[in-house]
Amino acid sequence: MNKQEVESAFQELTSLRRKVADLDAVESLLGWDQQVKMPPKGAEQRTRQLAILAEIMHREDTNPRVGELLGQLQQAEQSLNGAISDDQKVLLREWAREWKLATALPEAFASESAATASDAYACWIEARGKNDFSHFLPSMKKIIDLKFRQCEYFGMQDRPYDSLLDLFDPGLTVEKVESLFKPLHVDLVAILKKITEKNVSVRTDLLQREWPEENQRALATELVTRFGFDFEAGRVDTSPHPFCSGSMNDIRLTTRYNESDPRMALFGLCHEAGHGMYEQGFNHETWGTPLSGSMGMAIHESQSLFWEDYISRSPAFWDFAWPLAKQHFPEQLHDVSQEEWILFCNEVKPSLIRVEADEVTYPLHIIVRFEIERDIFNGSLKPDDVRQRWNELYVEYLGIDPPDDNHGVLQDVHWSFAFGYFPSYALGKLIAAMWWNKLRGEMDLDGLAAKGEFSPILGWMRENIHRQGKRYWAPELVKRAAGKELSSEDYLGYLKHKFYPLYGVEG
Amino acid sequence: MNKQEVESAFQELTSLRRKVADLDAVESLLGWDQQVKMPPKGAEQRTRQLAILAEIMHREDTNPRVGELLGQLQQAEQSLNGAISDDQKVLLREWAREWKLATALPEAFASESAATASDAYACWIEARGKNDFSHFLPSMKKIIDLKFRQCEYFGMQDRPYDSLLDLFDPGLTVEKVESLFKPLHVDLVAILKKITEKNVSVRTDLLQREWPEENQRALATELVTRFGFDFEAGRVDTSPHPFCSGSMNDIRLTTRYNESDPRMALFGLCHEAGHGMYEQGFNHETWGTPLSGSMGMAIHESQSLFWEDYISRSPAFWDFAWPLAKQHFPEQLHDVSQEEWILFCNEVKPSLIRVEADEVTYPLHIIVRFEIERDIFNGSLKPDDVRQRWNELYVEYLGIDPPDDNHGVLQDVHWSFAFGYFPSYALGKLIAAMWWNKLRGEMDLDGLAAKGEFSPILGWMRENIHRQGKRYWAPELVKRAAGKELSSEDYLGYLKHKFYPLYGVEG
Repeated sequence: MNKQEVESAFQELTSLRRKVADLDAVESLLGWDQQVKMPPKGAEQRTRQLAILAEIMHREDTNPRVGELLGQLQQAEQSLNGAISDDQKVLLREWAREWKLATALPEAFASESAATASDAYACWIEARGKNDFSHFLPSMKKIIDLKFRQCEYFGMQDRPYDSLLDLFDPGLTVEKVESLFKPLHVDLVAILKKITEKNVSVRTDLLQREWPEENQRALATELVTRFGFDFEAGRVDTSPHPFCSGSMNDIRLTTRYNESDPRMALFGLCHEAGHGMYEQGFNHETWGTPLSGSMGMAIHESQSLFWEDYISRSPAFWDFAWPLAKQHFPEQLHDVSQEEWILFCNEVKPSLIRVEADEVTYPLHIIVRFEIERDIFNGSLKPDDVRQRWNELYVEYLGIDPPDDNHGVLQDVHWSFAFGYFPSYALGKLIAAMWWNKLRGEMDLDGLAAKGEFSPILGWMRENIHRQGKRYWAPELVKRAAGKELSSEDYLGYLKHKFYPLYGVEG
Repeated sequence: MNKQEVESAFQELTSLRRKVADLDAVESLLGWDQQVKMPPKGAEQRTRQLAILAEIMHREDTNPRVGELLGQLQQAEQSLNGAISDDQKVLLREWAREWKLATALPEAFASESAATASDAYACWIEARGKNDFSHFLPSMKKIIDLKFRQCEYFGMQDRPYDSLLDLFDPGLTVEKVESLFKPLHVDLVAILKKITEKNVSVRTDLLQREWPEENQRALATELVTRFGFDFEAGRVDTSPHPFCSGSMNDIRLTTRYNESDPRMALFGLCHEAGHGMYEQGFNHETWGTPLSGSMGMAIHESQSLFWEDYISRSPAFWDFAWPLAKQHFPEQLHDVSQEEWILFCNEVKPSLIRVEADEVTYPLHIIVRFEIERDIFNGSLKPDDVRQRWNELYVEYLGIDPPDDNHGVLQDVHWSFAFGYFPSYALGKLIAAMWWNKLRGEMDLDGLAAKGEFSPILGWMRENIHRQGKRYWAPELVKRAAGKELSSEDYLGYLKHKFYPLYGVEG
């Protein structure tokens, strides 16, 4: 292969892979519509449409021509050193990874997995209705069995849980997660204790007031527009479970409204807008290639969490946003001080439900799940014992005993389709703290938030994170952008920096 | 081929063709989203997604296995008479038609057509902005040239316009259209003259009142729900150009709201719901095959127009709906009588714009377009002379001279992508009148409408039209369901029956 042949092979491969990216965006739209707009009887035909798309994408993903071109280019990479740019090396590395994942699983296994997950989801819904984990258990066992078999197809039968983690964050391992979670766990419990001991009272009487959906929507939309979410390239709708989907120039955010509690929609939308701005920030020219794709779950979460926790929940931010909040809720806030509002937005309290947890306790919820998943896949925990272990760990880490399965082991949908997903949530927390710490050194972060000037902040994210695509896997990206190794240090520092003053704890 | 082989070939072919039907539904959703929800910057990637889907569908449509199975089954049809059911014969006939249309056009020609139409559409938008047909003319010439070449590919170069008509209504010919339009034209002009001579005054002062969108939506939704449109299998949104899309259990209607004139949204939604109920009424078991597909444009329009004109605009209907209208618009209607309202909903007045035309003048708008298209494709009218001919015909048939191109030859988008489309609109009018006349013999149509009891009416449509799918081409379906040959007789009779009393014309 000469240099010209290399270029033309890259071109052909790019166009083959971009086609899949476009189909992926179609699939994403179908999923969005299913949750946001589709009438109920449309479900059956939508399932069929998604299955056909999956089949077509699988065919494209395993198109022999892709393997052939990859092989030729990998050879050229060896023999023609210098003819292949750094960006092209990234393309080769990531496409080879995609190729390996796509071709490792036999089609029959992929279909079986999809069908089993679909049944397991239905079973999880039923079990929720009965508030009974044992109804879901047989389905969960089938999923676990499938995951073990999947690890074998990937040639990772000796490290099954690593193999699962790697799907959500390339290169992530049990060892790495443990090294991050261990110091975290102990310190979080200590911080939590100091805060709760102060018995600071939060204005929970605000939950007795009515917060009309329309006003919540207006305020939340105003804030994320100000952040820099581009509504010419995205939109917001309502769905029972908030999410962000779509691609680059067409990002679909959703949120949900609780008319007794404005925090859910407000911070929920700031969170989803963080995801959305990440995708909107990809390099347009290389769209559909790994040079402008998402670098895994943890980095994605670091973006959503940054805008949610480090901006919209930060005390400084409310110097800017408080007048807006009072404008949209004059009656509801007439007897509330800015300080009370900030505390209301940062209530720390051990709770049973992960998605409602505050910043201090959230990682503890994840650690519970991580330890359970890890032990299932290293064989030391039987699925039959998962409920008991769950309840024990909640008592141990959070000091509360789940009164039933819906408030315990049955609360998350994930185990109906995935294991290894949860740790990335907590990693996202840790990484967001590292962006925060780095940014504080580069600019007057609080000052900017207090003035509602977000473009320097978004600009930094664009340059250091969004435009990097999949160039560097999460740990390397963190090292380059934050200037140090990924650890839980900044997160713990941040929690003390923010919550100790709020709750009157002496640092 | 023995009987068992025949069955298994039908099964395989069915599954191959249903896949395309599912992909078609995906394409339809992308189109709906594009017009209803998509943020503006999403346009470029949506175009790419649609092109990829079109390519995939073309590949499936021209899959050699389809041709092979069709060939085998056609042979078996000859040799194994009796082994093939009537329904299977329908499948073979329609699949063979689809196969012929799909394989006749070289892929390069199909791409060229799509690109030219896309450019022509953009050019039409620009020309509308300039209010200048001559700006659009070069694009229209390219489209005409493509259509001539398309007719050659279809082997119909000696009857080019028949070839175009056939795409929208199988078997339709110039000769047939002329035989229907000729008596129509003369009689419509006569009826129009009698009505306008009466100088009946319509409450156009109602257009000075404010009709809030919310109330329009509520009333229109209530009415179409009552008709039998299934909102568990469909939904309504807003778009600049109303349409109905989607498939069977997921039908998407749109309408638009004019807060000065409630008629547009009200009758617009009744119209689109007619389209929607047709599709919702297809046989579920055979979905995705010609046994439950739409029998062309004219039949589809006969459904929408039936519910719009023959139900929602009928005087009897307002015995039922008048209290509802007053409930939703108590102030706007406080000094309006039911009779005045009915006249307001049935205002007859020669006008320049097709989509705003009343029932009497509408076919005249179509005849203008038909004559122009016919003469372009028989070579007697040069594209350069289209504007002049248009203006002359409007003076001759409707007695008004378009003041500019936007109110004349540039008003419709169709010529940026299709010729031969318009006649089906008028055919839909004629056919709807035949359903009306037939139904009057079968049941007390006015009495049912006056009581808001629509299920016997929808039931008749379900059985005689919807469940027939593509079993019989339009003229045959009309003969079977209405009991006589398609003609303009019932339409003219209906106009006199309805409008003469309203306008005090002696029959």
